[in-house]
Amino acid sequence: MIQKGIAAKGGDLLPEPTLRRLPWYLAYLSTLKTQEETYISTTRLAEALAVDPSQIAKDLSFLGIRGKTRLGYEVNTLARTLHEFLGFGKCHNAIMTGAGSLGAALMADSGLQHYGLNIVAGIDTDPALAGTSISGVPVYAPSELDSLVKRLDIKIGIIAVPVEAAQDVADSLVAAGVKALWNFTPTRIRVSGQTVVANTSIYSHLAVMYNRLANLPHESIAD
Amino acid sequence: MIQKGIAAKGGDLLPEPTLRRLPWYLAYLSTLKTQEETYISTTRLAEALAVDPSQIAKDLSFLGIRGKTRLGYEVNTLARTLHEFLGFGKCHNAIMTGAGSLGAALMADSGLQHYGLNIVAGIDTDPALAGTSISGVPVYAPSELDSLVKRLDIKIGIIAVPVEAAQDVADSLVAAGVKALWNFTPTRIRVSGQTVVANTSIYSHLAVMYNRLANLPHESIAD
Repeated sequence: MIQKGIAAKGGDLLPEPTLRRLPWYLAYLSTLKTQEETYISTTRLAEALAVDPSQIAKDLSFLGIRGKTRLGYEVNTLARTLHEFLGFGKCHNAIMTGAGSLGAALMADSGLQHYGLNIVAGIDTDPALAGTSISGVPVYAPSELDSLVKRLDIKIGIIAVPVEAAQDVADSLVAAGVKALWNFTPTRIRVSGQTVVANTSIYSHLAVMYNRLANLPHESIAD
Repeated sequence: MIQKGIAAKGGDLLPEPTLRRLPWYLAYLSTLKTQEETYISTTRLAEALAVDPSQIAKDLSFLGIRGKTRLGYEVNTLARTLHEFLGFGKCHNAIMTGAGSLGAALMADSGLQHYGLNIVAGIDTDPALAGTSISGVPVYAPSELDSLVKRLDIKIGIIAVPVEAAQDVADSLVAAGVKALWNFTPTRIRVSGQTVVANTSIYSHLAVMYNRLANLPHESIAD
């Protein structure tokens, strides 16, 4: 979901597939912690997640962590290391552009905060919304964008505006000094220069799901 | 985001990359419609979306639609065809499991309805939530799952429960007769047989974005 074009720093950029598997390991560990297990072997992780054991060992080597022979990884240490490594323990200030249905929904999701995302302000073109707050997050008029980004040290701009406005909003966010865009619209955002663009196009995911659903073998669709 | 293992029907399954690009085209067309343009050329689509023109022609050929020489595609026809083809014009009944922060947020997002997703019921283990409704969607106890899926002809189960419960909930949804799972947890869901699993792991996307943000070339991070 990360668009190409971000320069690697000395080639040490972690492969995206690894970065997407690491949260699986963390999620699985949280189920173990409730069972009070101390160690987890690569083999067991591999079976539970249907990932090749050698792949898991390689993924975890990026964290500088190694399992003990026969025992495997210490669950709490591995969980803590993953949590820190993935940035979930840091506080990343973000601004939500578009405080409509999806934007407001994301502002209401306390889960994002648990994963290190701190939405400190919202922006909306609707004059009725400016000056209000949604789930405790104050909403401002677009004219406030520049000063907000600087004053609140905002590095991430979340885009949840209508499709037609997405590119303009992206340009304004970059101009204001934001370093990463998290795009929830189905639009392809174009940026020049060194800006990270992460796409979470939930409506596009629907299209893929509908298509696969419509193409399931007939016998399993019929009741 | 679709997990492997879904059997193709005579090999005519649309490639996922194509299915993920088609919504870009639709989104871009909606910006044109406000400008009242009649035709769009492949070249212009290609420039706007940074997709190779031959790729666009190939993607659109799956829809059985061809552009006119020199003019290109008729905007309204192409938009309507894409909308229908992607399943956004149909009504897909879905059940939300987990009516907590993220689940409630998704139930509140009217955008999903515009893209053909009709959340007809919610399920939550919290006894205080059963019997209430969230954004107009009634919430039930888990014991109601089976009868709801059958009675309301629900084909899609959305998973927005805590990580620890995700696999059990997935199993219950499949047992109840749901044909597709839309998984919002960072867990890797495992299903046997012919069930579509679509993963929208928004928290995993955060991990990738944080990593890329931390690895931006230094000069562009500095203010």
